[in-house]
Amino acid sequence: MFVPQIDDLRQTLDDVAGLEGLIEAGLFPDLSADLVAAVLSEAGRFAAEVLAPLNRAGDRHGCTFDAATHAVTTAPGWREAYRQWCEAGWAALPCPPDYGGQGLPVLMGLAVQELWNTAASAYGIGTLLTQGAAETIAAHGSEELRRTWLPGMVSGRWTGTMNLTEAQAGSDLSAIQTTAEPAGDGTWRIAGTKIFITYGEHDLTDNIVHLVLARIAGAPQGTRGMSLFLVPKFLLDEDGEPARRNDVKCIGLEEKLGIHGSPTCTLRFGDEEGAVGFLVGEENRGLACMFTMMNNARLHVGMQGVAVAERASQQAVAFARERRQGKLAGEVVPIVRHPDVQRMLADMEVKTQAARSICFETARALDLADHGATPEERAANAALAGLLTPIAKAFGTDVGSEVASLGVQVHGGMGYIEETGAAQHLRDARICQIYEGTNGIQAIDLVTRKLTLEGGDTFARWAAGVKATLKALAAHAATEAMAGELGRALAVLEETTAQLTAWLAAGDRRALAGATPYLRLFALVAGAHGLGLGALAALARNDAAATDRRLWRARYFAANHLPLAAGLGRIVCGGGDALADGAGLLIG
Amino acid sequence: MFVPQIDDLRQTLDDVAGLEGLIEAGLFPDLSADLVAAVLSEAGRFAAEVLAPLNRAGDRHGCTFDAATHAVTTAPGWREAYRQWCEAGWAALPCPPDYGGQGLPVLMGLAVQELWNTAASAYGIGTLLTQGAAETIAAHGSEELRRTWLPGMVSGRWTGTMNLTEAQAGSDLSAIQTTAEPAGDGTWRIAGTKIFITYGEHDLTDNIVHLVLARIAGAPQGTRGMSLFLVPKFLLDEDGEPARRNDVKCIGLEEKLGIHGSPTCTLRFGDEEGAVGFLVGEENRGLACMFTMMNNARLHVGMQGVAVAERASQQAVAFARERRQGKLAGEVVPIVRHPDVQRMLADMEVKTQAARSICFETARALDLADHGATPEERAANAALAGLLTPIAKAFGTDVGSEVASLGVQVHGGMGYIEETGAAQHLRDARICQIYEGTNGIQAIDLVTRKLTLEGGDTFARWAAGVKATLKALAAHAATEAMAGELGRALAVLEETTAQLTAWLAAGDRRALAGATPYLRLFALVAGAHGLGLGALAALARNDAAATDRRLWRARYFAANHLPLAAGLGRIVCGGGDALADGAGLLIG
Repeated sequence: MFVPQIDDLRQTLDDVAGLEGLIEAGLFPDLSADLVAAVLSEAGRFAAEVLAPLNRAGDRHGCTFDAATHAVTTAPGWREAYRQWCEAGWAALPCPPDYGGQGLPVLMGLAVQELWNTAASAYGIGTLLTQGAAETIAAHGSEELRRTWLPGMVSGRWTGTMNLTEAQAGSDLSAIQTTAEPAGDGTWRIAGTKIFITYGEHDLTDNIVHLVLARIAGAPQGTRGMSLFLVPKFLLDEDGEPARRNDVKCIGLEEKLGIHGSPTCTLRFGDEEGAVGFLVGEENRGLACMFTMMNNARLHVGMQGVAVAERASQQAVAFARERRQGKLAGEVVPIVRHPDVQRMLADMEVKTQAARSICFETARALDLADHGATPEERAANAALAGLLTPIAKAFGTDVGSEVASLGVQVHGGMGYIEETGAAQHLRDARICQIYEGTNGIQAIDLVTRKLTLEGGDTFARWAAGVKATLKALAAHAATEAMAGELGRALAVLEETTAQLTAWLAAGDRRALAGATPYLRLFALVAGAHGLGLGALAALARNDAAATDRRLWRARYFAANHLPLAAGLGRIVCGGGDALADGAGLLIG
Repeated sequence: MFVPQIDDLRQTLDDVAGLEGLIEAGLFPDLSADLVAAVLSEAGRFAAEVLAPLNRAGDRHGCTFDAATHAVTTAPGWREAYRQWCEAGWAALPCPPDYGGQGLPVLMGLAVQELWNTAASAYGIGTLLTQGAAETIAAHGSEELRRTWLPGMVSGRWTGTMNLTEAQAGSDLSAIQTTAEPAGDGTWRIAGTKIFITYGEHDLTDNIVHLVLARIAGAPQGTRGMSLFLVPKFLLDEDGEPARRNDVKCIGLEEKLGIHGSPTCTLRFGDEEGAVGFLVGEENRGLACMFTMMNNARLHVGMQGVAVAERASQQAVAFARERRQGKLAGEVVPIVRHPDVQRMLADMEVKTQAARSICFETARALDLADHGATPEERAANAALAGLLTPIAKAFGTDVGSEVASLGVQVHGGMGYIEETGAAQHLRDARICQIYEGTNGIQAIDLVTRKLTLEGGDTFARWAAGVKATLKALAAHAATEAMAGELGRALAVLEETTAQLTAWLAAGDRRALAGATPYLRLFALVAGAHGLGLGALAALARNDAAATDRRLWRARYFAANHLPLAAGLGRIVCGGGDALADGAGLLIG
């Protein structure tokens, strides 16, 4: 029940994110259209044949924890699949070439990650964290740290984790209490308890590289007093092989709503002789280092939402084409023939593709931030990636849950039975709206930090890009009506952005109150823009089959989703007062 | 973590549904305001003390099935709680007095059901089905059937079930294959397999009364060839005591996403000597009899959605007031102080109350359909109840899932951990959108059967009622702005209704394509209307504390939910073409 979504990935890479153009422009000398096709095809095959069968096993069996040995065992089949995945070189694909990686663009890494996550999101999340940890070490670690740890992480021999959350420090990392003390030999001793650590302990590899946010004694209070440490499960011997067990252990495994295949651990550091840690980056600059990882992780989690949506959509369409209920013209028909079921399937498809488009537009910006021709182009794209990341994360993951829920609904009563598998997608998708910064945090990040980037120029440049697309859409008879709808929605977005910016400058809390509906409004426009680009590219290419579907997606989204933009704008601009009036009642 | 929502129930009963007025007008001679207060207070106490503690146990332990004996055992504590519930007389409360019931109005039955379901929805659903089965027997059964079976069901000594679904017959009951053959002695022999039977087998009572939809050999094909049979688990001896085991057995228990405390059974009828059944109503009129039960059950399932929303809201507010994260003005504050969290909590509260209002408005219509002064009043209210029932069911249950999902989000990472309990509400709520007719079926019922009631007069009368409220809202400075918003939304609803009605008359499938967004639009207007009535009543009563909260709810809903009405109207009227264009792509 999983067919790799290669066509949609290719379309999005080339027509929305312009990968073909970037290759032709020489940005990625080692990449060609043929290589892109080969990588996607091979990854799709691996995802379908090796990873997809893990999905149910991971959910039903889950991970097990042995309190006596602190060991975590993954579900049957996971160890072997991980070994094959590393052997095939997939771990190295998105990693820097200096340490054994293949250095493919973010766009390619994201496409391949979508395939892993569509196959088994509880598997995908682990690989994503390792990749993020490796990037953080590559960006901020000393030459010695990089040489010591990156080759093992790049090859997949070791995995990485991200240790931020503590019981009292979730969305608010300033409350972190884990401590770090200098050992006198250049290393540090870490002590504290971290919770919700994804793949914090497991049996897939012979070592785990934890990145741990901790506070050095005497450091300033708040987020400016945090430092980042590399704390391995096993310290290495002189040959770089795991040798002595470090003083970090798993003391509990969470029982979660979903992603049961992914162990979520409570880790205890420094219970005995002290956990040996190595400083990554400068003292007290840990949060900035961690943000390298988090921004990328946020995009990838948005994409994880899209991936689960894709899986749920595939399953729902297949079911709706098989399941026969109700007559049309005297004949019992598959339920896909009923308009109300078609609406659910159509919403699933266009939301998934709209969110995918935003994710890949963000990845393009990240690639241009690295490889752009001029410093100006790189800076502008870094800012653009910053603007789009919270939207990719929050909208991608909202879509994940919404589409998975529609998938349950398409199945009717069967959807509520675990055996069917539809409910697993809903349970798995739900975490994505929470981890790597809740979607509320994303909305606040968007409004308070991203709209003001370059004094608002980042947003203005992005909006100008949408206007260019609008002009092209208006020039085609087939997309003219869509252009009108998108133009109206963009105007609402611009007005609303101006209002929020003004409130922000005045310190008016209505800016915060409107953050979540504003993000949704932004995503509707950005998603329609992506679908419009897909339609225009197909029209330009004169590809009749592709054109039908892409034109339809763009027009359906315009007629059935964009009409909510005006109302969302009114809620952002007019709903905050009523919210403030109720604050006292809610606070109690 | 459950405080009976007595104040909101009282407000909704009196100010939205006008129960006080109905009592004063003499419709319920046995009821007084004091009795209403006493019943709610006692039910609240019972729900909080006896039922609420079952909720977690039912979820974690679930029901167990012994394949050898076909026995189902409910979770620890459930048997004893059920016994107490019957002893306290709660089973009898909504039932007809002729058979031992207390004959309280539908409004009171609904209020009490909301309390049971808020405490433990997996418990509530069982009592609701018994009540529906009893009503069906009372309405359609012979005098002998009523005398034989109703007293045991009314007292709660026996429970009832609703056996409709078969593997090939879910939303489409015309495909039912279970057969009935005359035994020659006035009884029938039933054979077939029914699935998804809620409380189809359990250990709470010494008998179970199954209502089974089956086809008599030679009956017409389709829904007009179905008959309804009463098939008890145990046949009775001459003293009316359960004696001989009937040929019906549970052959499997579903593993579901939620409501684990409620056994969902596959029942096999007639494997051996044949299951003895008694015809209820006329031959081939079974579906009409079943609809008596289903309409009432639909309202109650809508209310079950509201109940889970209430429970999730209570838990989220309590958590948000305790959990401290993030600073305001230099001080770490409970997250309830953050505007984005306030928006989630506000949305939870107003959606819950709006959906509750619609459910009780429907119940009022049902009571007036029974007790109205004139045949015209009774007929008009029966039609109104028909119009509102699909909205109560679908919107109430959509709100259940949406609010429960927001509840998870308010908890952040803790919300994804099963121990917290927030995720259980999400899992429990999800079934309500599916059973008793999926929400898509409700939307289609609304558009194709309910808008056309009395040639459209039912809708027109309802809309006239909203206009009267609008006028009153416009006369108060505090609600003037809300009146404007509601007036615009009502105008959209009226225009959209006219368009759908015209399409329906012309056999245009766009009427079906727009059904789901149309139902949402209708619910926004109906929900705002209910909140407006609540605000007006508080203003009239000069009750400052109540006025604050009710005015706020009405204004918040108007400013943060009603603005979507115009977009929904545009989707209904303008989105169907794009959906039809995609039908071929979706069908594949």
